[in-house]
Amino acid sequence: MATEKEIIDIFRKNLKGTPNILLGISSEMGVFNDAGVVEIDGENLLVVTTDMIGYKTHIPDIATPKQIGKKSITVNISDLAAMGAKPLGVVMSIGFPSDLETQYIDKIAKGMNEAAASYSTCVFGGDINKTDDIILAGTAIGKTSKKQLFTRNDAEEGDIVCVTGNLGDSAASYYAWKNQLSLSPNIKEKIFPRFLDPKARIRESLILRDMQIVSSCGDISDGLGWELYKTGKASKVGFEIREDLLPINDEVYEIADKLNLNPLDMILYHGEDFELILTIKSNKWDWLVENMEKLDLNLTKIGEVCSKNLGNKIILKSKTKINIENKGYDQFKK
Amino acid sequence: MATEKEIIDIFRKNLKGTPNILLGISSEMGVFNDAGVVEIDGENLLVVTTDMIGYKTHIPDIATPKQIGKKSITVNISDLAAMGAKPLGVVMSIGFPSDLETQYIDKIAKGMNEAAASYSTCVFGGDINKTDDIILAGTAIGKTSKKQLFTRNDAEEGDIVCVTGNLGDSAASYYAWKNQLSLSPNIKEKIFPRFLDPKARIRESLILRDMQIVSSCGDISDGLGWELYKTGKASKVGFEIREDLLPINDEVYEIADKLNLNPLDMILYHGEDFELILTIKSNKWDWLVENMEKLDLNLTKIGEVCSKNLGNKIILKSKTKINIENKGYDQFKK
Repeated sequence: MATEKEIIDIFRKNLKGTPNILLGISSEMGVFNDAGVVEIDGENLLVVTTDMIGYKTHIPDIATPKQIGKKSITVNISDLAAMGAKPLGVVMSIGFPSDLETQYIDKIAKGMNEAAASYSTCVFGGDINKTDDIILAGTAIGKTSKKQLFTRNDAEEGDIVCVTGNLGDSAASYYAWKNQLSLSPNIKEKIFPRFLDPKARIRESLILRDMQIVSSCGDISDGLGWELYKTGKASKVGFEIREDLLPINDEVYEIADKLNLNPLDMILYHGEDFELILTIKSNKWDWLVENMEKLDLNLTKIGEVCSKNLGNKIILKSKTKINIENKGYDQFKK
Repeated sequence: MATEKEIIDIFRKNLKGTPNILLGISSEMGVFNDAGVVEIDGENLLVVTTDMIGYKTHIPDIATPKQIGKKSITVNISDLAAMGAKPLGVVMSIGFPSDLETQYIDKIAKGMNEAAASYSTCVFGGDINKTDDIILAGTAIGKTSKKQLFTRNDAEEGDIVCVTGNLGDSAASYYAWKNQLSLSPNIKEKIFPRFLDPKARIRESLILRDMQIVSSCGDISDGLGWELYKTGKASKVGFEIREDLLPINDEVYEIADKLNLNPLDMILYHGEDFELILTIKSNKWDWLVENMEKLDLNLTKIGEVCSKNLGNKIILKSKTKINIENKGYDQFKK
């Protein structure tokens, strides 16, 4: 039985690219980035990403059909955000069990439309199939240019590492749900929506891509640890992250405490935050901080890019420095 | 329990387009055409299609993993052919059961690569998921221009209706397989590959799109009857098809005879031929016939476009004229 990463390697080995593919599964850097990149003319690029949601694997039983529809869009738009691409549209291959109620389907469709509209885009095509599980396989297409494209390939020693929003809300909510924790109103209102109804940071991406200050970008879908691993590999750098700088809501600590879990593990190895992790040229950081409010951005510095030889480390609040592991969530494990 | 067409209607009702979508699920003509069309600048267009294959619903148990991989590409490229779009690339959202053998996966990947390469394109991105069934949800992206785009919208009374290749091979093979018919060598070699290993007519499409002689085009994926229905609705025309002109291999009659089935029903209502059905401006047909060989094309006239009021008819060999029904294959029925 193969792991997710072994299966990806089988496809990488077999699939050959064509010259118009700037970043793809068969290119050296393609596997570290969040979407494929296709050249359409000298300057303009298409960014294309596909992400499948299966009810049994990806959806908690408390999610409403509308939230499921929204999430099927958001997971794809988040990858466009990671690459600095403006959405052109989404297509969706759909599998439904034949006994699924019409009303349920209607709400999934409404959720898709609402999410797409919130990102100023739409679902313009699709395919309907009969399957055992609910399957929503979306493909989002975005447009960018060679100048505006974000990749994970160009982070440099000394760059500032920052993230949009807060980390760990989704993971903490997942564990709270999984362990049937009774939820305080705060957790219910502040943290849980980030688990059931995440948002893609496309607005932030499109503001930042025009500034020429971002040296790398990715979305945090598989845990900070795995995202740092990918950017580190692609850019041939290491990272020094500081625990005391991580933007973490009190409720994440509250849940971790109740369940006797390490909150840092949630942030490093769980994922589904759908926040962006960016590296910013160090000489531009102060300017960015000064202009943050005016630009309607909320970025938090969490560390710095360092030499590849130093690896990926986190300095704990206790000042102890520990390694960040190169691991992420694997659906095929156990 | 909803039918496939009812489910499509739920999505049509809920999904709103954006101004850059020239043809899409929410546009009047979108639902009759084979793929979505997105404007990327004043002249250039993207054609985008997505098609999901589920093992249980779509794949006969005698198909090899390589054939499954190839088919997942071909069904998508066929839709690009229907629209006159040159493939830029394919992305694939994949679901595998966790106990699927590595060797089987490797052969699926090899099939995908071989098919994509045969259409001068590639698979450049994807997503791997754990699912109960084998699910291959491909999205193909192609490029065309406003001048080169094929739709189903502009067939006119008097136009010649023609098809590429032969019809009914796939349907006849399906019934032969389903009824465990013992296969003659001829059937095995000539007909069966069209069922297990179909080809998309992208080469023919790209030759024809530059000639400005095609008034409508579609691919025959759901039976000739359903394809004529869609083109008729989109173009506001009817069709008069002649049974004696239909390009049908002897083996199709042989299988139909053995199984006591009507061969015409196979062609009209079964599908999976993946041939193109085109309407050609009548004053260009003779020129096209004269140049067919030079252009390396094999088109067969099967009838003419007539007034909408006359509906879609077929003139049988017996000279009887009967209605072609507006029906196609529905996975959700029974």
